[in-house]
Amino acid sequence: MKFRRSGRLVDMTNYLLHHPHSLVPLTYFSEKYKSAKSSISEDLTIIKETFEQHGIGTLLTVPGAAGGVKYIPKVELKEAKQFIDELCELMARPERLLPGGYLYLTDLLGNPSIVNKIGKLFATVFSNRKIDVVMTVATKGITLAYAVAAQLDVPVVIVRKDSKVTEGSTVSINYVSGSSKRIQTMLLAKRSLTEGSNVLIIDDFMKAGGTINGMISLLDEFKANVSGIGVLVETEGVEERLVDEYISLVKLTEVDTREKHIEVKPGSYFQFEDENEDGGE
Amino acid sequence: MKFRRSGRLVDMTNYLLHHPHSLVPLTYFSEKYKSAKSSISEDLTIIKETFEQHGIGTLLTVPGAAGGVKYIPKVELKEAKQFIDELCELMARPERLLPGGYLYLTDLLGNPSIVNKIGKLFATVFSNRKIDVVMTVATKGITLAYAVAAQLDVPVVIVRKDSKVTEGSTVSINYVSGSSKRIQTMLLAKRSLTEGSNVLIIDDFMKAGGTINGMISLLDEFKANVSGIGVLVETEGVEERLVDEYISLVKLTEVDTREKHIEVKPGSYFQFEDENEDGGE
Repeated sequence: MKFRRSGRLVDMTNYLLHHPHSLVPLTYFSEKYKSAKSSISEDLTIIKETFEQHGIGTLLTVPGAAGGVKYIPKVELKEAKQFIDELCELMARPERLLPGGYLYLTDLLGNPSIVNKIGKLFATVFSNRKIDVVMTVATKGITLAYAVAAQLDVPVVIVRKDSKVTEGSTVSINYVSGSSKRIQTMLLAKRSLTEGSNVLIIDDFMKAGGTINGMISLLDEFKANVSGIGVLVETEGVEERLVDEYISLVKLTEVDTREKHIEVKPGSYFQFEDENEDGGE
Repeated sequence: MKFRRSGRLVDMTNYLLHHPHSLVPLTYFSEKYKSAKSSISEDLTIIKETFEQHGIGTLLTVPGAAGGVKYIPKVELKEAKQFIDELCELMARPERLLPGGYLYLTDLLGNPSIVNKIGKLFATVFSNRKIDVVMTVATKGITLAYAVAAQLDVPVVIVRKDSKVTEGSTVSINYVSGSSKRIQTMLLAKRSLTEGSNVLIIDDFMKAGGTINGMISLLDEFKANVSGIGVLVETEGVEERLVDEYISLVKLTEVDTREKHIEVKPGSYFQFEDENEDGGE
């Protein structure tokens, strides 16, 4: 059975969207559709142009015998600005305020279309880094980390604060929580991370950075490298930040529990996004 | 600017895949591409045929002024069988065996392409039910529940076994763990679930069903309805199962910790899948 271009375009789009950052040889498509490589190349040109025109991402062509095509999810600067503004608006709602100056974010972190967009933003800004694994700490950041991992096509590993029989042997470390200065424990299943992995750390909230600092220490134990750190919300005005280089989408600048007033502004995302634009691929 | 059919097909495919179970009015597309509704209808026919031919899902057309088109993700029976067989093979590996007869599943639950497929299987089998929310209990089932929720385009809510300041007020219940017979507590943030919601419960592992039974009691407190229960792995030979109607992908039939031997077979998925086929949409 031969496939017409229109059908091929629909199926190839579906395939590429579900295999981000994976090199797909042209022969995969030409065999699947029993079509000439030249036709497949033309299809890919149309898909690439449409992806770029509509801000879906881009297709990289890798030439040669071992070559093929790779879909790189990318959010355009304009769309990213718009989405982060929306996030700011959502987060500034006074009903989010919880005792202790915390923000209720559970609804946002459980909304697939928001979480998926956040995942794509982080995948965009970290697209030039070498990443083998995305890591987070249980519980609230898991959906976020999974969405980033899905866009980068790498596994997600989850650090826990309590040991479970269903994890097998674990490596644990003690760390000092940045704000409360209490000593806490976090652990990771031994077999969930290979030595020397390049790890992107993702979390939902960062105050002083104690938890993220703990994850960095844990990565030391696995002789793994930190490829990057991304947080959804950071708080401003922290006396002594324990983590230097990180990317945030939203910055919490003021919380007034008495007046029920929250102020937020866009985080450091665009500084890094600009860097990426300059360095270009 | 006018859009050619080929570009429209690529962009519409992307849009539909990211908005499953949502009704998209034809005017949305005709305005976006400045094209006649008749052309958009032809595009949708091509997309529908391709989706069905390649087992991506289907498009439902809702006629009338308030009508439009809806993408329903669906895994075909043949592909589902093949994937569940693969899962069985992956799970039967002796190195998964942990003390106490538990299975190490963390790698599978952290692999986006596997998790995404599992999500699509559950979305297929539950596609006829009314579902407002997907619910799971922290920690291991979260990626799975999120993937199902994403395919159904509904939020995911996460029940916890410990209270957190970042959740606000919670509703808690006590339940008896089915296998250990110990009394435990689980809780859910009050504002994370609206009264009367229709809830699909998803979890990674079920022995006697105590945890799932606990979630059902918790839903009672919220006057919410159970729309369905899906578990990745169930264990066979449980004396007294606390939960009746559920769908499993894989059934653990024998675990021999001494001989390091695991036996698994496909779960109850296909019994329900057949039901769906008969009932048909």
